[in-house]
Amino acid sequence: VTQNPAARMFESAKFIQWMGVELLNLADGICEAKLIVRDEFLQQDGFVHAGILTTLADHCAGGAVGSLLRPHQRVLSIEFKTGFLRPAKSRELYCRSISLKTGKSIGFAESVIYSSLKEMQSGATEGLIAKSSVTLAVLNSA
Amino acid sequence: VTQNPAARMFESAKFIQWMGVELLNLADGICEAKLIVRDEFLQQDGFVHAGILTTLADHCAGGAVGSLLRPHQRVLSIEFKTGFLRPAKSRELYCRSISLKTGKSIGFAESVIYSSLKEMQSGATEGLIAKSSVTLAVLNSA
Amino acid sequence: VTQNPAARMFESAKFIQWMGVELLNLADGICEAKLIVRDEFLQQDGFVHAGILTTLADHCAGGAVGSLLRPHQRVLSIEFKTGFLRPAKSRELYCRSISLKTGKSIGFAESVIYSSLKEMQSGATEGLIAKSSVTLAVLNSA
Amino acid sequence: VTQNPAARMFESAKFIQWMGVELLNLADGICEAKLIVRDEFLQQDGFVHAGILTTLADHCAGGAVGSLLRPHQRVLSIEFKTGFLRPAKSRELYCRSISLKTGKSIGFAESVIYSSLKEMQSGATEGLIAKSSVTLAVLNSA
Repeated sequence: VTQNPAARMFESAKFIQWMGVELLNLADGICEAKLIVRDEFLQQDGFVHAGILTTLADHCAGGAVGSLLRPHQRVLSIEFKTGFLRPAKSRELYCRSISLKTGKSIGFAESVIYSSLKEMQSGATEGLIAKSSVTLAVLNSA
Repeated sequence: VTQNPAARMFESAKFIQWMGVELLNLADGICEAKLIVRDEFLQQDGFVHAGILTTLADHCAGGAVGSLLRPHQRVLSIEFKTGFLRPAKSRELYCRSISLKTGKSIGFAESVIYSSLKEMQSGATEGLIAKSSVTLAVLNSA
Repeated sequence: VTQNPAARMFESAKFIQWMGVELLNLADGICEAKLIVRDEFLQQDGFVHAGILTTLADHCAGGAVGSLLRPHQRVLSIEFKTGFLRPAKSRELYCRSISLKTGKSIGFAESVIYSSLKEMQSGATEGLIAKSSVTLAVLNSA
Repeated sequence: VTQNPAARMFESAKFIQWMGVELLNLADGICEAKLIVRDEFLQQDGFVHAGILTTLADHCAGGAVGSLLRPHQRVLSIEFKTGFLRPAKSRELYCRSISLKTGKSIGFAESVIYSSLKEMQSGATEGLIAKSSVTLAVLNSA
């Protein structure tokens, strides 16, 4: 049984499993994941739906903050905002989230979505697909 | 063939079809839709994933602005922000979106997600699940 | 000495006093205020600076949530988002904020800025200057 | 006469002059500025008002995007969101804004507010006061 709150998020969220999000890295306030795009993810113009992008951004933000929590704690998104810089046309998407601040009751994180692993690793802004800022509640589970 | 840009959005977006979003009302800057919750939509705590909620909110916002456009125009989300007021636990969700302003190149809309049709019809704030503000680009299709 | 947390916010915030924000109504999760525009509030094109608009929107949101709190509690903004629908050119601005949900530790509010009292009273969307959604922390003062 | 659209923004915005914002760096999609805190900037608890922080963040975001424009162009904020990570208690504030993407009609920027020059130069997340994401319209002046 996984005890880390963030790893648990990726294992037990049915929608994330349906999407096929692959966790690449999860530690010390950072969460990275990969998503292989399927036709079911598209909107009316053939781009990846904004809702798929925000799911990825939101969930990884929870992972980034969650990676800093203790086993009995968990996160719940309070709000997020996402800017869509370019239509998502690639067949793979990569998301890197970092915790900007994880406090006792509130966490702040941001997520960046790239269209290739190389871009995520370089952290370049040139090809950015989307960027989210996420506020999360840090909860002590019953 | 449907010519209205907003109706087309609901018919041809594969992710929206997968979710099973049912369009209830689409006219004059207003878009209302219903979503029956399936297990595949849930996150790790058994609530509807924030990404499902934002998909619904974003797409209906596009519908609200799109309902005011001419056949050769379409919308694309620039950014949105969503506040998650309560965990979504109900088996049905309803979303009402309205255009706050639809200009030549930019549209502003907002979407409210309710857990029952009655709440959506009354417009009450008591049981609000989520509320989004959405900025969209109005594009002239090639 | 005023005991209500929201009234205190308007009396003791120096920046709000400098701006000359006039509190019109403060009760039951609603806060309304008036601002007479001065030249010092303008940006480079002669419109009211976005920062003045967001100050008004943020502070009144705090008022709306604060009006529901007990004397020993206070609010602090966690984040807000503002959409700027139209340039602010009028000599008076009016802001109405409402609490969407005020819980034990988090409050959600929204603020709408109008260019006339009549528009605020009617709640019309036609002339909206700006609309903000605000998330606030509810704190128990030491 | 200054021709660069971004430099003009700092010279001719009356509210920015009142605040005393000092431009430190403006080129190639980056804008950095300093603000010396005065008592008039404070809110009810003695912290810098969120509206002052967002004014700084918004204006510098306009500078960052504006630095990439041609003389006849200018920017106007469409929307922004700001997260307030820590109360602003310092006597100086520093803001660095960068353009994430500046297109023909829309610009995306983000602004980070620090409490010291050293923190801004290091880009560290430890002491962050606030972070904004800003969407701007790129306009061709009459």
